[in-house]
This record gives sequence, structure tokens and C-alpha cells, in this order.
Amino acid sequence: MKINKEHNLFQLSIGSEILLEHTPEQPMLYVGHGKESLEMYRGNFKIEDYLEERQPLDLIEVKQEGKIYTLTFNQAITLTITIDNTSIVLNFGGDLDQFNRFWFRLRADAEEKCYGGGEQMSYFNLRGRHFPIWTSEPGVGRDKKSHITWQADVTGMAGGDYYNSNFPQPSFISTKRYYVHVNSTAYSDLDFRNEDFHEVHVWQIPSSIRIEFANDYPTLLERLTAYLGRQPLIPSWIHDGLILGLQGGSDRVLPIMQRVLDLGVPIAAIWCQDWSGRRVTSFGKRIHWDWIANDAMYPDLKKLVKRLNDQGIRFMNYLNPYLVKDGKLYQEAKDLGYFATKHDGSEYLVDFGEFDCGVIDFTNPKAHQWFKEIIQKYTIDLGISGWMADFGEYLPVDDIKLHSGNSAMIEHNHWPTLWAKCNFDAVSERDKWDEIFYFMRAGGSGVQGYCPMLWAGDQSVDFSLHDGIATVITGALSAGMSGFGISHSDIGGYTSLFENIRTKELYLRWVEMSAFSPLMRTHEGNRPDTNFQFYDDEESILATARMVKIYRDLKPYIRQLIEDNSTKGLPVQRPLFLHYDHDAHTYDLQYQYLLGADMIVAPVYLSQHYRVDLYLPEDEWVHLWSGTEMTPGHMSCQAPMGYPAVFYRKSSAFASLFAKIGKNYGGVAP
Amino acid sequence: MKINKEHNLFQLSIGSEILLEHTPEQPMLYVGHGKESLEMYRGNFKIEDYLEERQPLDLIEVKQEGKIYTLTFNQAITLTITIDNTSIVLNFGGDLDQFNRFWFRLRADAEEKCYGGGEQMSYFNLRGRHFPIWTSEPGVGRDKKSHITWQADVTGMAGGDYYNSNFPQPSFISTKRYYVHVNSTAYSDLDFRNEDFHEVHVWQIPSSIRIEFANDYPTLLERLTAYLGRQPLIPSWIHDGLILGLQGGSDRVLPIMQRVLDLGVPIAAIWCQDWSGRRVTSFGKRIHWDWIANDAMYPDLKKLVKRLNDQGIRFMNYLNPYLVKDGKLYQEAKDLGYFATKHDGSEYLVDFGEFDCGVIDFTNPKAHQWFKEIIQKYTIDLGISGWMADFGEYLPVDDIKLHSGNSAMIEHNHWPTLWAKCNFDAVSERDKWDEIFYFMRAGGSGVQGYCPMLWAGDQSVDFSLHDGIATVITGALSAGMSGFGISHSDIGGYTSLFENIRTKELYLRWVEMSAFSPLMRTHEGNRPDTNFQFYDDEESILATARMVKIYRDLKPYIRQLIEDNSTKGLPVQRPLFLHYDHDAHTYDLQYQYLLGADMIVAPVYLSQHYRVDLYLPEDEWVHLWSGTEMTPGHMSCQAPMGYPAVFYRKSSAFASLFAKIGKNYGGVAP
Repeated sequence: MKINKEHNLFQLSIGSEILLEHTPEQPMLYVGHGKESLEMYRGNFKIEDYLEERQPLDLIEVKQEGKIYTLTFNQAITLTITIDNTSIVLNFGGDLDQFNRFWFRLRADAEEKCYGGGEQMSYFNLRGRHFPIWTSEPGVGRDKKSHITWQADVTGMAGGDYYNSNFPQPSFISTKRYYVHVNSTAYSDLDFRNEDFHEVHVWQIPSSIRIEFANDYPTLLERLTAYLGRQPLIPSWIHDGLILGLQGGSDRVLPIMQRVLDLGVPIAAIWCQDWSGRRVTSFGKRIHWDWIANDAMYPDLKKLVKRLNDQGIRFMNYLNPYLVKDGKLYQEAKDLGYFATKHDGSEYLVDFGEFDCGVIDFTNPKAHQWFKEIIQKYTIDLGISGWMADFGEYLPVDDIKLHSGNSAMIEHNHWPTLWAKCNFDAVSERDKWDEIFYFMRAGGSGVQGYCPMLWAGDQSVDFSLHDGIATVITGALSAGMSGFGISHSDIGGYTSLFENIRTKELYLRWVEMSAFSPLMRTHEGNRPDTNFQFYDDEESILATARMVKIYRDLKPYIRQLIEDNSTKGLPVQRPLFLHYDHDAHTYDLQYQYLLGADMIVAPVYLSQHYRVDLYLPEDEWVHLWSGTEMTPGHMSCQAPMGYPAVFYRKSSAFASLFAKIGKNYGGVAP
Repeated sequence: MKINKEHNLFQLSIGSEILLEHTPEQPMLYVGHGKESLEMYRGNFKIEDYLEERQPLDLIEVKQEGKIYTLTFNQAITLTITIDNTSIVLNFGGDLDQFNRFWFRLRADAEEKCYGGGEQMSYFNLRGRHFPIWTSEPGVGRDKKSHITWQADVTGMAGGDYYNSNFPQPSFISTKRYYVHVNSTAYSDLDFRNEDFHEVHVWQIPSSIRIEFANDYPTLLERLTAYLGRQPLIPSWIHDGLILGLQGGSDRVLPIMQRVLDLGVPIAAIWCQDWSGRRVTSFGKRIHWDWIANDAMYPDLKKLVKRLNDQGIRFMNYLNPYLVKDGKLYQEAKDLGYFATKHDGSEYLVDFGEFDCGVIDFTNPKAHQWFKEIIQKYTIDLGISGWMADFGEYLPVDDIKLHSGNSAMIEHNHWPTLWAKCNFDAVSERDKWDEIFYFMRAGGSGVQGYCPMLWAGDQSVDFSLHDGIATVITGALSAGMSGFGISHSDIGGYTSLFENIRTKELYLRWVEMSAFSPLMRTHEGNRPDTNFQFYDDEESILATARMVKIYRDLKPYIRQLIEDNSTKGLPVQRPLFLHYDHDAHTYDLQYQYLLGADMIVAPVYLSQHYRVDLYLPEDEWVHLWSGTEMTPGHMSCQAPMGYPAVFYRKSSAFASLFAKIGKNYGGVAP
């Protein structure tokens, strides 16, 4: 690192390139005032900002003391830059609250690419676009040019756009081999639209901004996750089979499970999201948000769990941090004062889609404690092995009073992490990490250390690029570049609206992709009755059985990847450039990935496609299904149903395992 | 007016209310820098601004010399405020080009309403919204929630929004009885979203801002039009009948005209837009943009015009300021160097929808002269009595070089006025204002003095609030508040896309509304063959005959209104508050209007509606169709087909004329 400074100039270079620069002509920092307006409807936000003032800060003086530089700006704002061999930490001082808008620029060049921003579903390389950071529903369709997005927008503000995410995060990694993380949960925006700089916009002056460097991406991710946290290790039973998503009560669930078992599908767990009861809305079949087992639907659940466990099958359920007004727990929480309220102290209810709920106030340590005990008492103590820890994105910002006294504008993006922590404490206190895991869709900075597994949220049941199966790949890769390296998805997708219906083709493509991911879990979707269900179709059950067996056979390999993620922050699914950083072609691939270092997977993400275009970097790659040794480069690979394009490295320590899988389940040329 | 000033404070009050105020806490002026990006597709613009800097100006010193106050701000910017009894003129001095963004605030209060902004089609009262000022296609549907807008956006960026207008203008009048006009043709934005101030945003520091006051609205409009200009008086033959829009060449046009005549429709003129030839595109039947009569379609047009004139029927045609590349005039203009070019001097073509055209460079006096002579030679000298002077909104801004050296960002909004001036000079030089008139859809500041008549542009052929028949009323009222007081529309609407087809009901409602407007003109629309044409339906021809006769009978009254508009800037169609300013109810009416001072018209603007809700202010109103004397107030009035809700003032000097019309054509109770 090289520093160049004068009284009104500061430049920090890495090698020959300037990264931080403040000159009178090229200011590094801007501050100002804005008046935001936010409208929320069922987790979808319409956000507008009226920018009243934005001015560059003028550098008045630079002082140095060893590796610490203190920059004094006008407006009585100071910036302390602390430098060591691999990091730069920027801390702001002075009367920071006098401004509510902040911009920070890093010098960039045209060829540079950036990744991360949390879990981004539409675009992996962030350059050329901006990404508002505000956790929300991801939106239906997520493409303003699509008819489904238009319909969702018109009927419920729910269409979304390319940047909407359950798990956005103000951090990114650059191909200049650094990461930036902004220490703020305020609304922010990562702006990569400019050729010669990146701009980070935050609706407060952040307490700090952290930059770290490394010579290679694995080390860079190790540093990022050392800072943000790493995922608790998920139990090993998940590799033993499918997590079968079923609803409708024991009477419906058990016979279907038996049919699926009988046709040879290894089952690790059944996951019954309606364990606490069912609620039918116009959106589809939903759940009674009162986190106690429903005896009518699942009589004597504890016994059922025990019986299943004896068969080697786990039972999983569903939780989220809201309580429905007509449930039993609502009254208890209300009496205890554990809900967020209006500023006048009166009841604050949020509409979740034809039913209203209270919001547990996790900024109140007692509320956190109480909800953790609810999880322990009504879920863990029944012998349940895990759950979907849903939602976390709905903290409203208008007229809501939190126990901490913090503004909801600051706590909104923080909420998913608070929710994760509640689950984390529930499991940790019971010392059950060998047995229990949960998975979340919502996230934000710090969720990394409190959540063992992500799932990719509510895809539409289709092949659309912005909301279908393809987004699962992009989402996993970008989450990995944001310190969250383990993810999976609802096999078959979730959201079926406006005549958009899951097909058998979609299901089969999804299940074959999921075999090459850390976890396999099916979901019946929001409208089970009108969408394709694999358990209704013998051919699909058999195809599922085959893919789950492949997944199970991969256990030794996948297990190592999951451990590497938990110990080193090395994602299970990785962009190719992570290990082939000298190959420029690898930086633009968002629909194929490295599964660990030794396997390349290029799933079929478009309908009626039976070949996949892909790229193999320079190495000795072997086609999984035929054992063919490949010539690296761009190619088109055959991919009939059941045979996604998968390759392994000939020199892998697991090569014989892969070869055996290829022999047992293969027979298709590349 | 009262002034309060200190070294860093300036307040100008009207009566007890502050209008202009600069204090350190409430700055009046902001300046800054932005980087715009504009994309144009067939006259529709996608405009984004990256606002890099915005800072309030600090007032350093206020000097007074008589009625002139000089305010010195930081950044070496001065503001000279010249005050007389009824006006305030703000002039800016200093190095104005150092900034490309500018904001100016006027104090406001919550109850205040504002009108104008040029011709606004969706909203008459501008409060609560902002209105970008950039002349463009108005957009199809103009409502992001409508399916037609979504389709138009997706297929061609053409959907538009509530503020899109062919004729936007940075001026407005306030219910505090002042007008503001910004002297700049740069991109600007009138922002009425704030309760306690209005904000005018301009992409340059404007040369001046003008504010004038009056005690009443008619006087205020008189002052506004004394400044902006007033419309040349249209010839009186237009009142003698319908201007019948027909296409397809003499062989088709003349027989249809004869049928319409035979069934009793008074015809003032036929208007043949395809006089220069036809061009069929996927949008519909369009025109060969080469402004010479097409002999194949209209053989010996001069003789035809003469023959028609002898029958008392005028002939009208169509012109616009572009020349199609495959036409005869294109080569001539190109050889003369009269087109705008790229910066390197090479050919600049604009796509107008499947055909490319050159843009006559009106900043070149010789090009202006040449095009004026084209109009004279090929149109006026054929004996033609008028034309649609179409377009003017398409000046592109990327890589375009103008003769004046001015930036296209400055000339874009100026273009409609330059185009109007060319027509104006062509007619004035021939001294033909008694005989000739033309009508435009595009406009901007200054067009008022150079164009005799507006038309409301390309409505969709439907009853939609944002793009159908209703917008004609709002458009006429807002244009009137912007100094343009005479407008009409395509009877039946124009744009038929995506299965949206003109119905007989729509045509009949439109023709009955137009009888109570300054001019009646039909249009076959963009897809004549698939849309309803009144001349195909005897019942509709007869209904048209009846309405045209009513229009013709109103001539003495309407004529006076048109003269009042040309001499005093008093619009022909007026909002009710213009004459009933003490009645608070009159300020929120955008679908009914005063036709002059003596008639109130409330057209049916919704489908399948046979009653209209309306408001009659305190006065003696008589229902036109029945002679019933009305009780003022809110009411619902019967409006069967052919009988829009119309009332006249009992004390009108024209009361006997109105009564006679009511007797001759009436017979329906209110």
C-alpha cells in the first residue's frame, strides 16, 4: 500500500492503482440530507427519496501517526484510516447525526467486476447497475418487462425488480481482490453504474467501513467471514436422503411418505410446515402462525416424531418471528409487552396477506428470551430436528416503537440477524447442533454466524431468468461472495400465481440440479392442489429416487465442502474464478458453478433445452455421466432429463467416488 | 408587497403571506451538478439523472436600490430581484455555467392549488405530484397500472406516465393568484409534492424567473399571455361545419364526403393527411413525409382544392418538420446542409417508426427560410386552407450538432416553438390569417404567439382516464392556464393498439363533446380499417349532423370567445374557478368546464354512463336541452347519447341564442 498526502489531498494505492482518493476535483465523501418516503404492502416496499442536499466534504488537514491517518474535513467531520498489511478500516468521527445521507467512493476501472451485495438473484456481476440494500419480499417475476411482474405489481405492489432480495448486504468483493463492508444497517445502495468509481450510499454516516485484501479469492473470503461470521455446521443426517415437504396433517402426510419410500426414495426427514395449523388465503395454503403443534392435524406430534426417528426419519417444522392475532401465543406476548407497538404504545399489527400479526420486538432482551423458549418448548422439546425459520423482512418503519429506542429505519435491515440469533440461542442452549438445523431466506450483515443454512426464497414455478430456477444458482454464488456459503432451494419452486403452474419438466430439472447442492428439499408450493407434485407421478418418484441416491453417494465429498465453509468461509457452490482466477472467461459465468474445487455443474435452467452451453477452464475435466475426458474451453454439452452437465477433476482425491457414481447412474455422452 | 431583509435573510411577502424566503434554515436556492442519461425511442424518452451535488446557496449580502434588490450569494452568484406593483423578476448573474442543476423554492401552504405546467392530460391541479418538463410523445395508456401501458412499454418504451406531454411548460399559476414562469428551455421539473413549498428544478441556472400577480384570474391570464404571447385569430370559416378527416386519395375521399354531405352534415373542410402519399407500418396507416402533393393519390390537387372551394368546402393537409430519407425533398435539404448532423458532420437520421428521417435544423436561419418556402410553395400556393403541423418533440440529444452551436439539451424543449414560428412566418408572409390556420400538438414557452390552435394529440380510442376522451378536457384546461386558450381534439381518438378499438359509443360521446369546443374535426385514427368510422353508419352520420349544426349555431358565441382568447388570453374552455373564484368547490373540477363565461359543459367521459355528476356554482343556470332553471350545487344530470350536460347563464347576452338551440335540438330533462 502506498499513501500520497497533502493538506487537501489523500491517495491510497494498492500496487500501481489508486483505491482511495480525495482531491478537490475528485472528492471521496459526500454528505447531505434527504427525506425518504416508504410504503410497505405485505413485505414489498415502495421507496422514494427526495434529496435535498448533497455536498462534497472538503479536506482540510491530514495527520499521520504511524499507520493511522486522520483526515479532517469541513463540517467538523473526521475520518480515521487505520492501515495494516491486509486491511484498511475507516472510522468516522464528529457530529455525524447532522447528516442523514452519505456517499463514499472508491476508484474503479472499466474492466473491474464486483460480486456480492448479499444474495442477489438476477445479476452476479454487479457492475453497470445499482443495488438498493433493503430486506424485503423478492417480488414475483422480478422483471418489469414480464407480464407476471406487471400483474403482481398491479394487484399487490408485489412484482419486484432485479435488486429485490430477502438478504441484501452492503458489502462486495472486487476483482481487484479486496472486499468492502459497510458497517451500517441503514438503507443503503451499492452503485456500480460508473466506470471510474464505485459509490456506496448510506442513509446515515456509517460507524465504519472495512476493506481487506488478499492475493487470492479463497483467502479474501476467509478474511471476510472471519469478520462477518461463518455458518454453524449442519448435522450430517441431512445427507442421508431427501427432506420431503408435505402438508395436510398426519393422515395425508404419512401415506404419501410411505409411497415415496416404497418407490426407493431415501428420506432423511419429512418437513411439515403446517404443523401448527393451516390457513387458507387467496394466495394459497398457508399456515396458522401460532407456534404450537396442532393436535387436530398432527395428533400427539411428539409420539409421531419418535416413531419416525425410530425409522431413521427426522421431523421438521416451520417458524417465523410473528404471531397471528387469533392464535394462543399472541395474547401471552401481548400481555408481556413483547410486541413492537405504535409510538403511543397501542397495538401494531402487520398484514401478512389476509391475516394480521404482531411483531416480536427482538430489541427487547426479554422478548428474545421468551421467543427462544417458545422455540425450545414447543419445537425442540418435541424432538423436532429442524425448521424453516421464515421471514424477518417485514419490520415496518412507520409509527413503530421498539424497546431499544432505535429507529425502525436502522433496525429493519438488522431484523433478520436478530431473528437468526434467537434461533441460534435456542439450539445452542440445548446443545443440539449435532442434530438440529434451520434454514432462512432473510439475511443481512452478521446473519452469517447465526444461521446454518440459507434457502433461496420463493422462486416462481417457472424457467424465467429473474424469478425461476436460474436465480437459485445466481443467489447461491452471490451469497457466497457475501460470506454465506451454504444454500439450497425449494425443489420445484414455490410461487404459483396468475396461471403460472409448476410443470413436471420444471420439477425434474430442479431435482437434478439439487442433487449437486448441499441439501435436497421438496416443497409443494403455495397452491399444492393445482401444481405438479412428484409424489403423484411414479416416473417422477423414480427419477427423484435416482437423484437423491446420487446426492447421498456424494456425501463424503459434500460433507468436506460444508466443513470447509464452516471453518474457512469457502462456499460450497463457488464461481469458477475462485479457483481459476487467471482465466478471464470464468468471471462472467452465473449459471454454472464449482461444487467445491473438484466438480463443475451446469444445470439446465431453461425449458425444452437438452444441451447446455458452458465453459471448462484449463484442467483435466471428466464428464460425470460418461467418463469422457474433456478438452477445456467453451462447449455445448448434452443434458437430457436426469443428466445435468457435471464434470469432475481427474486429479481430485474423490475421483474414484465420482467415477463410481458415473458408472452406477451414467450412460450419457457429453 | 413587503420586504424584510438582513445580511443573510430575505423575505418577500404578499399581504400577510411570505412568497419568497431565504434564511440560513430555509434556503431559497440550491445549485449542483448532475449527470443525465437520456434514451430516446420514437419520441419516448427514458431519462435518469445521477445527482452528484446539491447545495444551498448562502446569502452573504442584500443591497437595495429603489425597487431593485441585489442578493449576493456564495459561489459568486448574484440574484437581482426587480419589483413593481404586479411583478417580480428574478435575474441571475455570475458564473452560472459552473453549475448544471438548479432549484428554486417558493413558500406554499397546504390549501394552495396550482395549475398549468403546459398541457397536462392526467391531472389539472398539480399539487401532490411533480411534473418533468420535457416535450415527448405522450405515451400510450399513460398509466403504469394499465395493461395497455405495460404492453406499450414492453414493445416500444411507449407506455408513458401521467406527466408525459407534447406540450409541457415550466410555468404555473397558483391559487394565491400569481403565476411563475421559468425562462429556460432546459429540462426542468415542477415539484408540488411538498406542503410548505413548491420547488422548480432546472438543468441550468435559468436566465430569469418571472412572477406576476393579479386580483383575479382573468387579469392574471391576461398578464401571463401578454408575456408569453397570444394565439393568432383563426379564420371564421371553421365555424361553418365539420372538418372531415379522410384518407386514401381522391377516389376514396370524395365519395365519402358526398355521402356525409348528403345526410346533412355541414362540412367546413376536408382534411386529408395523406395528401403527400401513404406509408403503411405495423403501427398503422401513416404518411409519406415528403411535403409535396402525391399525384397518384390526389391527381391535380390544385384543381381539386379549387373545385371544393367553389362548393364552400376547404381542403386541409398535413406537415411536420422532418423529411423522409426516400422522399424528394430530403436530398435537396441534405445538399443544402439544412439538416442537423452528427458532431462529425455526418448524416443524422431519426427513426419515426419503421422509417428514417432527417431533422430540419431550425436554428439555421436559412433552413427555416427554406422550409417556410416549402410550405408556401407546395401547400399554401395550392389554395390549401390549413394543416396539422404535427410533431416537434423528437429533437434527439445524443451526438447531434445544431447550426446555432447550442446544445440539443437546451434546444429540445425549444423545438416546438421554432417549428410553430416556421408555420407562422409562412402564413404571415402570404398575409393569409383570414383564410389559413394550422394546429399543433407540440408546444413550449413562446409557442403561444406562433400557433393559432392546439389539438390534444393522440388519445387512445377509449374511455380511460389517463389516455382517453377525458384527457381532452384536462388538457384544454391546463393549456389555458399556461397561456394557450384554444384547443380541440381528434373526434373519436387516434391510437388503436393491442386490440383497443374505437367503438360507436366512444365516437358519439366524442362528437357531442366537440360541439361545445372551438372546433370540430374527425380523425380516422391510426388503423382506419379496424376502428369504427362514423361515415360507415347512417345513425352516426345523422347524429354528427345534429351536433355539427349545434356547433354551427353557437358560432356567434364561440367566435367572441375565440376573439377574447386572442386579444386577452382568456381561454375558450375555462375552469370554473376562473369566474367563481370565491367558491372553493370550483377548484377541484377537471372534467367539466366553462365554455366562455356563460356556458357550463360536463361531457360524458366514461363508458355506459348516462348521467354525469357535476357542480353548478351560485348563479342562474338553465339546462340547455330542457330550459329547466337549475338549483346550484352538486348534482347528477341526465345525459343520454347526444345530450351532454350543458347549461347556460340566464343573464347571458346570448341567452336567446342558447334557448333557441335548446328548443331546436333539445327535449331531454336534466
